[in-house]
Amino acid sequence: MKRKSRSARILVSNDDGIDAPGIYALVHELKKLGTVTVVAPDKQQSAVGHAITMNYPLRVSKFVKNGKFFGYAVEGTPADCVKLAAHTLLPKQPDILVSGINHGSNTAINIIYSGTVSAATEGTVLGIPSIAISLTTYEKPDFRFAAKFARKLAAFILKKGLPEATLLNVNVPPVKEKDIRGVRVTRQGKTRWGDTFDVRRDPTNKEYYWLTGKLEIVDYSEDTDQIAVMNNYISVTPIHYDLTDYKSLKEMRKWDVDSLL
Amino acid sequence: MKRKSRSARILVSNDDGIDAPGIYALVHELKKLGTVTVVAPDKQQSAVGHAITMNYPLRVSKFVKNGKFFGYAVEGTPADCVKLAAHTLLPKQPDILVSGINHGSNTAINIIYSGTVSAATEGTVLGIPSIAISLTTYEKPDFRFAAKFARKLAAFILKKGLPEATLLNVNVPPVKEKDIRGVRVTRQGKTRWGDTFDVRRDPTNKEYYWLTGKLEIVDYSEDTDQIAVMNNYISVTPIHYDLTDYKSLKEMRKWDVDSLL
Repeated sequence: MKRKSRSARILVSNDDGIDAPGIYALVHELKKLGTVTVVAPDKQQSAVGHAITMNYPLRVSKFVKNGKFFGYAVEGTPADCVKLAAHTLLPKQPDILVSGINHGSNTAINIIYSGTVSAATEGTVLGIPSIAISLTTYEKPDFRFAAKFARKLAAFILKKGLPEATLLNVNVPPVKEKDIRGVRVTRQGKTRWGDTFDVRRDPTNKEYYWLTGKLEIVDYSEDTDQIAVMNNYISVTPIHYDLTDYKSLKEMRKWDVDSLL
Repeated sequence: MKRKSRSARILVSNDDGIDAPGIYALVHELKKLGTVTVVAPDKQQSAVGHAITMNYPLRVSKFVKNGKFFGYAVEGTPADCVKLAAHTLLPKQPDILVSGINHGSNTAINIIYSGTVSAATEGTVLGIPSIAISLTTYEKPDFRFAAKFARKLAAFILKKGLPEATLLNVNVPPVKEKDIRGVRVTRQGKTRWGDTFDVRRDPTNKEYYWLTGKLEIVDYSEDTDQIAVMNNYISVTPIHYDLTDYKSLKEMRKWDVDSLL
């Protein structure tokens, strides 16, 4: 699907919440491309994965920023926001969805926990070309360059389209524009969380557990998202939601599974 | 990794909650294979996707059923349960993880929303051979046959092992044992939720939205999970968490992405 970007209808969501600086920077840039509608969680939703709300109703309120209507705040997850936007809040299907800018990396194993990626996945499920974008730092962020890149990439995708059922997961390293070495099309890297839990006791002496952990890199290949951003490249990874492991499928078709009955 | 199944250490979790009949039926069968430890959410967690809890502490309590200790109830998601079990509650890494038995289908697009699959994914991330199992009905379920099949499959995997980073997503049709036509190794099917939202008003006249929807089958191929269970086969799908779309990756490597800088 090719479209002129001038009149583009753009849906924006995130998982850091509608009041996060990353979504604000993103919207500022995307307004140069067309009409932007923001539908985002009313509060931080990091690491919610691809959760949707089925057992509770969703509430929506209008969110005002600097005295102006900024967007719709949803008491729900990123995937809820996108479903609700597409089915109820928007009069027409948007031409593109951009989710972010996430404050923190969404590379390698982190993708499976990511609410930012989840919003873009839900967009793709609904047939909207979708991009997730993250700035790979937990320090005080400057989103301006990442927002500008998001705008250029969105314009490119509005013209070129995306393969059906593919979304783009973009990670921008947190360096000055002049230190960016280029853009790499990458695959999902391999990392592992060396998880541990802090065991603590509350004032009544009952135990509770805090998740803590250190990221370990398992694969240092240069064509992975993780290593690309470490080397100051912008990483663009095409991902999908067909989780079938085709290599194992081929192998397993030789198994005598009927013997299990 | 091959092991004798006699002394197997088995971790069980789910997303329907520790008091659900599906996990009870599963544990009853798996006890025939070895030592079972149950670590499951304290309440229903359906459609939580691969959420993890980072911003709140986790609490754990011992859950008693029929006067006996049954397992650990965690105030968290299925992925939280598995992380906590592996790192804190279990003295040793389990030989296998079985998640379920979910009350309802986890085929096709539903996989990406599934808490049941998420528990097995987290097990796989942690290096534990893992199986997710669901009974594909929303009617009053009889979990006995599915539990028996789970036990046989677990014994098989304990002997044979699984390819690294692959998990099994199993769906059992809700028919009598004699009407099961066999076991099929399948790929993830293609369905779409024809989502809509019910717009309602609360007593103070404020709007709220309930997610509702009807499943539409997009691909009727017989080698998919969706169609296999419709035809009364047990479906076993190898899935993984490398979300890279390798077909699009190849294509996108021809794109002049550096022109975006």
